[in-house]
Amino acid sequence: MERHFDEELRELEEQLLRMGALVGEMISLSIKALAQRETGLITVVREKEDEVNRLHIKIDELCLRLLALRQPLAVDLRFITAGLRINSDLERMGDLAVNITDATRPLLEEPPLKPLIDIPRMSEMAANMAKESLNSFLKRDTKLAKAILNQDNEVDYLKDQIFREFLTYMMQDSSTIKRALELILISRHLERIADHACNIAEDVIFMVMGKDIRHPKLQR
Amino acid sequence: MERHFDEELRELEEQLLRMGALVGEMISLSIKALAQRETGLITVVREKEDEVNRLHIKIDELCLRLLALRQPLAVDLRFITAGLRINSDLERMGDLAVNITDATRPLLEEPPLKPLIDIPRMSEMAANMAKESLNSFLKRDTKLAKAILNQDNEVDYLKDQIFREFLTYMMQDSSTIKRALELILISRHLERIADHACNIAEDVIFMVMGKDIRHPKLQR
Repeated sequence: MERHFDEELRELEEQLLRMGALVGEMISLSIKALAQRETGLITVVREKEDEVNRLHIKIDELCLRLLALRQPLAVDLRFITAGLRINSDLERMGDLAVNITDATRPLLEEPPLKPLIDIPRMSEMAANMAKESLNSFLKRDTKLAKAILNQDNEVDYLKDQIFREFLTYMMQDSSTIKRALELILISRHLERIADHACNIAEDVIFMVMGKDIRHPKLQR
Repeated sequence: MERHFDEELRELEEQLLRMGALVGEMISLSIKALAQRETGLITVVREKEDEVNRLHIKIDELCLRLLALRQPLAVDLRFITAGLRINSDLERMGDLAVNITDATRPLLEEPPLKPLIDIPRMSEMAANMAKESLNSFLKRDTKLAKAILNQDNEVDYLKDQIFREFLTYMMQDSSTIKRALELILISRHLERIADHACNIAEDVIFMVMGKDIRHPKLQR
């Protein structure tokens, strides 16, 4: 029995949401490994990465199959190409969670550097933006998507703040250099997770409105 | 007069190569600004970014139009979806060149930190991989694409090397901390440029062979 196109589109949506849920868990776990100093969680993140990579390939194949067999138009075409893009953003977000664990591992071999400054706050923001970007996709909610884009400035502010404060630490006490450096790198990974959440939000706006809002400063 | 599909595909290819050339210039210029301490080049990179962003949107529109109007199959479909992906990789590479200039600016306000360790070598590699990835696309050359993928380990090795050596600097002389830190961040941007070149190489292999070679370690 041939399946309905609608059903296939729903399958694509479900796979993306499943991937989004997995990536969300990877982000939360990587941060938890750092904040609560639990090495065991690093292994869990790695295991989930395999599953994310499997989904990454599967979703791409599904998108290509739908483009080839269904020759979709207008909103369906935008949905499927947004799917391709969101798929790749989610996969990178998963990679970044792995990067966070890579930077966390050496940190857990040394005594904790307290405080972590704004890292917990920044990680909460990035994880939340990731989650909400998927929600905006599920609900086709452009208002929510725009709210995510508006948070990016705050993430950038936190990133600069973290840089400055850890720099001061390093200058004052050279025994903190290695740890502060890893924490700065972690803040950069968090920044990129937030960037990918913004990419997804932009895709949602494009998908719903058929309007490309990237590069707003351009005179076209 | 209606244009031929072949002609439109050629236009897509030309736009991608034009974008690739611009991004290649941005990368070279950003590195030159750092190595030769020329602030003026930073402005040039910024100007090119506007053009890259314009092309980014234009190429996406072209891909979507081709998907909608031509309903391509097999190799043409893979070419256009690869185009979408390569377009986004190129745009990010341009962003990374801008990131390099952002980290270079404060460096040029202070006396030079000599030597730059493996940064010149790493930047040469990343710029070359970016250029060759576009070449592999132009020539549909999977052998070249695979050669690019093989260089990624060396880039990672250089990145770790740079990290360790600048860390030693920082520990030995706290007056180098700020500069060494910016240089470590630059090495991370170079690493990501090389990653995007690898993404493009993977897209070329997929486009030519219809085979997804990402995530090679997965048991599928």
